[in-house]
Amino acid sequence: MTLHLNLAENAYDITIERGALLRVDELFSLDRRVLVVTDDGVPPAYARAVCDKAKNPFLVVLGAGEKSKSMDSYQLLLSKMLSHGFTRQDAVVAVGGGVVGDLAGFAAATYMRGIDFYNIPTTVLAAVDSSIGGKTAIDFMGVKNIVGAFHQPKAVLIDPNTLTTLSKRHISNGLCEALKMAMTSDATLFSIFESEDIEEKLEEIIIRSVCIKKGIVEADERENGCRRILNFGHTLGHGIEAVSGFSALYHGECVALGMIPMCSAAVRERLIPILKKLHLPTTFSGSLADAIDVASHDKKSVSDGVYTVFVPEIGVCEIRKTSFQEWRDFVITAWGDRE
Amino acid sequence: MTLHLNLAENAYDITIERGALLRVDELFSLDRRVLVVTDDGVPPAYARAVCDKAKNPFLVVLGAGEKSKSMDSYQLLLSKMLSHGFTRQDAVVAVGGGVVGDLAGFAAATYMRGIDFYNIPTTVLAAVDSSIGGKTAIDFMGVKNIVGAFHQPKAVLIDPNTLTTLSKRHISNGLCEALKMAMTSDATLFSIFESEDIEEKLEEIIIRSVCIKKGIVEADERENGCRRILNFGHTLGHGIEAVSGFSALYHGECVALGMIPMCSAAVRERLIPILKKLHLPTTFSGSLADAIDVASHDKKSVSDGVYTVFVPEIGVCEIRKTSFQEWRDFVITAWGDRE
Repeated sequence: MTLHLNLAENAYDITIERGALLRVDELFSLDRRVLVVTDDGVPPAYARAVCDKAKNPFLVVLGAGEKSKSMDSYQLLLSKMLSHGFTRQDAVVAVGGGVVGDLAGFAAATYMRGIDFYNIPTTVLAAVDSSIGGKTAIDFMGVKNIVGAFHQPKAVLIDPNTLTTLSKRHISNGLCEALKMAMTSDATLFSIFESEDIEEKLEEIIIRSVCIKKGIVEADERENGCRRILNFGHTLGHGIEAVSGFSALYHGECVALGMIPMCSAAVRERLIPILKKLHLPTTFSGSLADAIDVASHDKKSVSDGVYTVFVPEIGVCEIRKTSFQEWRDFVITAWGDRE
Repeated sequence: MTLHLNLAENAYDITIERGALLRVDELFSLDRRVLVVTDDGVPPAYARAVCDKAKNPFLVVLGAGEKSKSMDSYQLLLSKMLSHGFTRQDAVVAVGGGVVGDLAGFAAATYMRGIDFYNIPTTVLAAVDSSIGGKTAIDFMGVKNIVGAFHQPKAVLIDPNTLTTLSKRHISNGLCEALKMAMTSDATLFSIFESEDIEEKLEEIIIRSVCIKKGIVEADERENGCRRILNFGHTLGHGIEAVSGFSALYHGECVALGMIPMCSAAVRERLIPILKKLHLPTTFSGSLADAIDVASHDKKSVSDGVYTVFVPEIGVCEIRKTSFQEWRDFVITAWGDRE
């Protein structure tokens, strides 16, 4: 199945298909210099499949994990391209999760002021969320995604066969972003999470999530309005991620916690059992106050407060602008209520 | 005089007016956190004029010269913004020449994936060329402008009073870019250089040059076509700049040399006296072959060659795509002819 993301001059196709990786050269234009970026947590066969089909491939294997999403890795990718004589006509392909995609995308966005970028997400998290929409970034001074650019990929390839090699914890981590989109935008998808065999329905969950994200990105490419919906659970989630040191908890696990206070009691009552079904956390052992403070550095914050997303009923959401103090009080109260 | 650069959602005004710096707060939106970036070669009063009018200014003074256009300076600006809690609603103002504008613009382009950027060029070079058009960049691994982004400013302020503090050599350096635009696009401007008192006509020269650049940028914001015209003299010019270590010769002086082989003999015969009138170089003591080799890393190069610009008669130009070898042979022959 191919979905077309319709963005004037930045339009592109997202192919979701078992075995698509084996025909990557039909979907991407690889007849040139290609920097293939992956990490050592990704089965090497995936990046090799791309290198095998590229005219002039250069492979970079980073260490797995958030620590690779750094200024150092960014400079490593730039220097590789420069030393191998990459021109504006050459390309970058990411093969991996969100760290690899965001980092490689930022290098592609800024090398010679922007060259072609392709993304092959191999985690559920990246497939349903970060690979779609053109957000690229690195972390800096301990703050996640603080430096980056909007740079849409030329194409995205999601091969569900590559997603099944993940651990159950990784899969749940990614499914949390799909659950987030169900809560704000798709009651049917929510009911799949609630009532069906999630593993069996994985492909449908991915397609439904990509469709939601595609619609939101088409309406608001640069995150000036409704794209903020996608930030549901993320303001507090990013704070929790930072205070837990980007390692103890996965991104989706932090978002799971971040969603808990940002919905009505009725929604929360249906959310918690799904989080448990997915083995996602429902309690946080760290300091909630610290997480809220760190969240004040969130990119979505504005001089006079913060935009946050609240879900009053399944499939419906409200974007709220409040002061930090109001949001802080709201989160602490809602968090207390649930216990 | 205010010129409007008409670029759909990236449109902005360029104000060219004596004394405009004193009413910067009417032209820029400074009622927020503002990172004011300048260098120690710029009279400190210019940046102070901006700080005085900003609600919450943070001043960064870099060392003057190309060496500041580095990954280190880039990280310095990012860290300043981050440590002072800059949000997406805050802004960066550059006060200086091309180095300050390109660097500060790149930091603004990538901090939180892009915040507002304003430019106050205080050199003739920046006023007629680099401040208009949204190209931002830093140098990396010895290659000029290899990392960057397209990020249009929100507004540009050119106060001709600030340009007269420059040395004669700096003024000629900047005028070379205006001369370049005259050669490719404006025979009347060329005749001003040829027959009139250049110092007296400075304001008209700036306005005419900005008009030419504005028209070209409007036609081709992302440099996929006719914007290549602006690259006249720059492919070889960048090579000369690199082999002379970014210091012995100024940018405009390298472009002056870069134009010499890229025009017809008849044009060259009229060009050389103007270069001499401006005290710009007409001979190069370094290795032309080395400069050509370094030029092969130029961003405008493509896998199978290079786009270069040739001026057969004043005010007319041709964009040529050739192999590197052809271009190399052409330059060496033309260079020999002139001596």
